[in-house]
Amino acid sequence: MAELHVTSATNPRLKAVAALRRRRVREDEGRTVVDGYDELALAVDAGVVPDLLLHCPELMLDAQAQGRLVERVRALGATTIRCGRAAFEKVAYREGPDGFLAVVPVAGVALADLDFPPDPLVVVVEGLEKPGNLGSVLRSADAAGVAAVVAADPATDWGNPNVVRASKGTVFTVPVAAAPLSEVLDWLRGRGVRLVATTPDTEVLHTAVDWRGPVAVAVGTEKTGLTDEALAAADERVRIPMAGRVNSLNAGVSAAVVLYEAVRQRS
Amino acid sequence: MAELHVTSATNPRLKAVAALRRRRVREDEGRTVVDGYDELALAVDAGVVPDLLLHCPELMLDAQAQGRLVERVRALGATTIRCGRAAFEKVAYREGPDGFLAVVPVAGVALADLDFPPDPLVVVVEGLEKPGNLGSVLRSADAAGVAAVVAADPATDWGNPNVVRASKGTVFTVPVAAAPLSEVLDWLRGRGVRLVATTPDTEVLHTAVDWRGPVAVAVGTEKTGLTDEALAAADERVRIPMAGRVNSLNAGVSAAVVLYEAVRQRS
Repeated sequence: MAELHVTSATNPRLKAVAALRRRRVREDEGRTVVDGYDELALAVDAGVVPDLLLHCPELMLDAQAQGRLVERVRALGATTIRCGRAAFEKVAYREGPDGFLAVVPVAGVALADLDFPPDPLVVVVEGLEKPGNLGSVLRSADAAGVAAVVAADPATDWGNPNVVRASKGTVFTVPVAAAPLSEVLDWLRGRGVRLVATTPDTEVLHTAVDWRGPVAVAVGTEKTGLTDEALAAADERVRIPMAGRVNSLNAGVSAAVVLYEAVRQRS
Repeated sequence: MAELHVTSATNPRLKAVAALRRRRVREDEGRTVVDGYDELALAVDAGVVPDLLLHCPELMLDAQAQGRLVERVRALGATTIRCGRAAFEKVAYREGPDGFLAVVPVAGVALADLDFPPDPLVVVVEGLEKPGNLGSVLRSADAAGVAAVVAADPATDWGNPNVVRASKGTVFTVPVAAAPLSEVLDWLRGRGVRLVATTPDTEVLHTAVDWRGPVAVAVGTEKTGLTDEALAAADERVRIPMAGRVNSLNAGVSAAVVLYEAVRQRS
């Protein structure tokens, strides 16, 4: 079967991809877009099966080598559409698109369906809004080998294409879920997972607690931190020592510093 | 003396500020711009004395409270110019400027002039180009209380306004310098500072070395890492363990993880 070749961004298939910029549409369809070769390759490596791939050989850094990913996605059963440059650039999310734009199922499962190792290390992010921070937390979580990242009362959905991109695709490699805070707290208690909250308002350093066993670290927003509800529910509260003039690291960096202390203690 | 009020971006003073977008001009004049209230307040707290402040009350979040910073800068001897909104937005660097734009001396001293505590913890960044990464390294360095951040063969100058901004102003609170790599290596040797290089190509974990005493950690670019010259010159080579699918944290996160291990050992 000959592959469809589209040169107009008004093509209905392309318009449907562009519509996924809206959270409402993503949530209705359970689909999001992956914009970029590296991110898509990582997602496919992690077992993601795209529904649709728009590709534009003209924009690829190395169309011959990268074209193999097109074949691979087609072999998984996805429809592929070759696009003209102007049409592709109109539908792509980022500036300087690299010729790969795929529609994939949104990452994430229900809390109850998260599958855990015996002594999980979990990250709970509360209220995080900035896609860049969520993406950075995911990269840190991937590197540290956490069992799951759970968004409590998230202001941004895991399907946000900017989260996908800022995460470098790790939103598909790290198990993720989202739920109201109260459900997250019940779920942690039910699974016997201790909750350690990060906050500037304590004298206990993050290096002073025991990170072994089933444990979750909670991080809040850069501006306001964790809510009183999350802080009150925590088994322990810790801070990262700050020697400087600025009183906060960003959420992704804070998460990495705490997670690597946990990794050190657990190894 | 009545304050100057300018409503046209073609005013020569405003044009001179806009010209500082060019590295050449920054280096000729030894000046850069600080764009934003928080960054400027931190710089002034750290002892920076601006030459000039453009301010635009219309754009300020809280002109009454933030106006005190205008008074403070004027009291330091700086010229202040009140600008109309359109003119200010034209000269400002960032989208959504907040009404503060100051001309200040570029951060940084000569290597020989860096003033050290007895057992300094130093960061060497080699070849870093992205202002966001340099800014993130500076924030981590500020939080961890390092003695200095030294740029070896930098592709980006410390005066880059995007570095100033990404650093949240910490480029003015952390002592910084820049020099060719060979000079940086000579300087470390001359001061008796051990060099620990971060690289994926070793089995030694960052938690396995002794971070006490005078020590520098070297980080390279996200894509290519440290050069062979820097790796060969290092006393020890360490890696951050990566459990996930993506093989690198960004430079700012890597620096934070390693620096906080050093802080833990040194405290």
